[in-house]
Amino acid sequence: MSVSKAPGDRKVILTGDRPTGPLHLGHYVGSLKNRVAYQHEYKQFVLVADAQALTDNTDDRGKVHRNVSEVALDYLAVGIDPDVTTICVQTWLPELTELTFYYLNLVTVARLERNPTVKQEIGLRNFERDIPAGFLTYPVSQAADITAFRATLVPVGEDQLPMIEQTNEIVRRLNRLADREILVETKALVPPIGRLPGIDGKAKMSKSLGNVINISSTPDEIRAAVKKCYTDPLHLKVEDPGHLEGNVAFAYLDAFDEDKEGLQALKDHYVRGGLADSKVKARLEERLQEMLRPMRERREQYAKDPEYVWNMLRAGTERARETVSQTLDDVRSVFVTPGWKK
Amino acid sequence: MSVSKAPGDRKVILTGDRPTGPLHLGHYVGSLKNRVAYQHEYKQFVLVADAQALTDNTDDRGKVHRNVSEVALDYLAVGIDPDVTTICVQTWLPELTELTFYYLNLVTVARLERNPTVKQEIGLRNFERDIPAGFLTYPVSQAADITAFRATLVPVGEDQLPMIEQTNEIVRRLNRLADREILVETKALVPPIGRLPGIDGKAKMSKSLGNVINISSTPDEIRAAVKKCYTDPLHLKVEDPGHLEGNVAFAYLDAFDEDKEGLQALKDHYVRGGLADSKVKARLEERLQEMLRPMRERREQYAKDPEYVWNMLRAGTERARETVSQTLDDVRSVFVTPGWKK
Repeated sequence: MSVSKAPGDRKVILTGDRPTGPLHLGHYVGSLKNRVAYQHEYKQFVLVADAQALTDNTDDRGKVHRNVSEVALDYLAVGIDPDVTTICVQTWLPELTELTFYYLNLVTVARLERNPTVKQEIGLRNFERDIPAGFLTYPVSQAADITAFRATLVPVGEDQLPMIEQTNEIVRRLNRLADREILVETKALVPPIGRLPGIDGKAKMSKSLGNVINISSTPDEIRAAVKKCYTDPLHLKVEDPGHLEGNVAFAYLDAFDEDKEGLQALKDHYVRGGLADSKVKARLEERLQEMLRPMRERREQYAKDPEYVWNMLRAGTERARETVSQTLDDVRSVFVTPGWKK
Repeated sequence: MSVSKAPGDRKVILTGDRPTGPLHLGHYVGSLKNRVAYQHEYKQFVLVADAQALTDNTDDRGKVHRNVSEVALDYLAVGIDPDVTTICVQTWLPELTELTFYYLNLVTVARLERNPTVKQEIGLRNFERDIPAGFLTYPVSQAADITAFRATLVPVGEDQLPMIEQTNEIVRRLNRLADREILVETKALVPPIGRLPGIDGKAKMSKSLGNVINISSTPDEIRAAVKKCYTDPLHLKVEDPGHLEGNVAFAYLDAFDEDKEGLQALKDHYVRGGLADSKVKARLEERLQEMLRPMRERREQYAKDPEYVWNMLRAGTERARETVSQTLDDVRSVFVTPGWKK
């Protein structure tokens, strides 16, 4: 059996999101924006990870199901093109669950417990020993996703590097077992731009912290969020010199204002003193409104045609299945008792 | 959606074996013999649990695969009739892996670690913290099997009652989540006859202890095994009174000699003194040769036609799939994002 490769040996990139709520500017800067660029350079799969979202939302699966099409609308809004990027739904790909099942034999419990992401999330979610088994094993499920798509690149934050390491351990273990290259190793692609802080100045923009600006925000919501933006608590009077460190308004301008010269002049003025926060925020609001308007309009257009969105997800999933079921066939050849004729 | 029931509401029974070696008289007394009886009373599924065997035989999966047809031959040898009992292969039913995946969200890690069977097996296999994750989660996989077949009865030893409890916890959790009866609860069926000791007098007949008599044993192997049978170490001279407690030869005669009157007379004589062990063993050997001869002959007949055996397993698996995929559809209706058209 020959190892399948991506057509033309183009690099394969896999990303995705847990559909637990609207995507926001943090997602945009950290990931969505890059996907719009990657889609022409790489063979790109985007997985709506509803199965993974269920691991800690079992009691609220309605939320997960509702957000599948919402997240898809966010993708279309930012310019991910379903004709070049394969957008697919995890629970519609049972192949991934079978891979997870077999990979569970290739990882020890101790190894899973050492996974820093799992450790940290267990802390965050107050699970302690009452973690659902599916939560402990989710790095195995992620390894199933990554290997199923034969992804050679996975864009991740620094904190997710252990996931890549765990995946490659499984890849090597399986290839050694099979004595041939069934699975391909993957590489982390750490994006150049770091995390966008929350509007309140907290290190991370996060729905659960309530400090986000959504891709789908209305003009009023954008205005209100910018108004609340954390700036410099020492900048009490306009004439006081201002500080840029930890100043969210400037952090956002760094991320979204393409007039870098004008922005530098603004920063100089702010640091010198004599520039009101309101001026900085006015510029930020203008930039955000400009950037988000076309996204919101595109989103609204697509939202009027839910059948288009669902058909797009179905077609993407079927396209994904071609790759995923090929990988599964290869993995089955290792584990499944020979003699099965489907 | 209506809950599927077994045709005519007949009770459904599920049993199975890990295909890691030949089945022996311990299996026969504890389980196989009952299955031959049950098959006319119940709707019976027998699962060749190759996927479960892989959880601790990943490095020796060739052994597992080879033993699938060997175990099937043992079934045919003892008189399990594939026309009335559905014999199927676990790795050929990927539906079971998808159920396992979803059930993992319904069980906590702490709960799995408390499972006494898992605890004990971890000790037996010297796994400690290096247990494969698939081994920790195998009670979830067993729950998937039991519920997939909508089994209402599972014949188990006392030591496996926690498995039934774990399964019913998952059943109740899922039905509560779904707010309707998706899965049926199951009951343990503890067989009347206890365990057959090993020929060396150890409590359990077990391949790994090397104290077994296989279903497929040749006449010479039976003779040699009976010769080695542990009897009464205090019975040094023929005229000494003998003891029945812990005497394997008599334990086997209890299990296999249908001439209960003759057997009682033999026991009385032994206890009184004046009966040589060789006489007891001669009777035991005769009974075992009588019982195993037709099984071995049937086995040899079927073994000459491997294609028949594989076709039988394929047909059984496809019959099993009808039930299993119906259950999976019901479980999917809880977890899978609506909108998937297969």
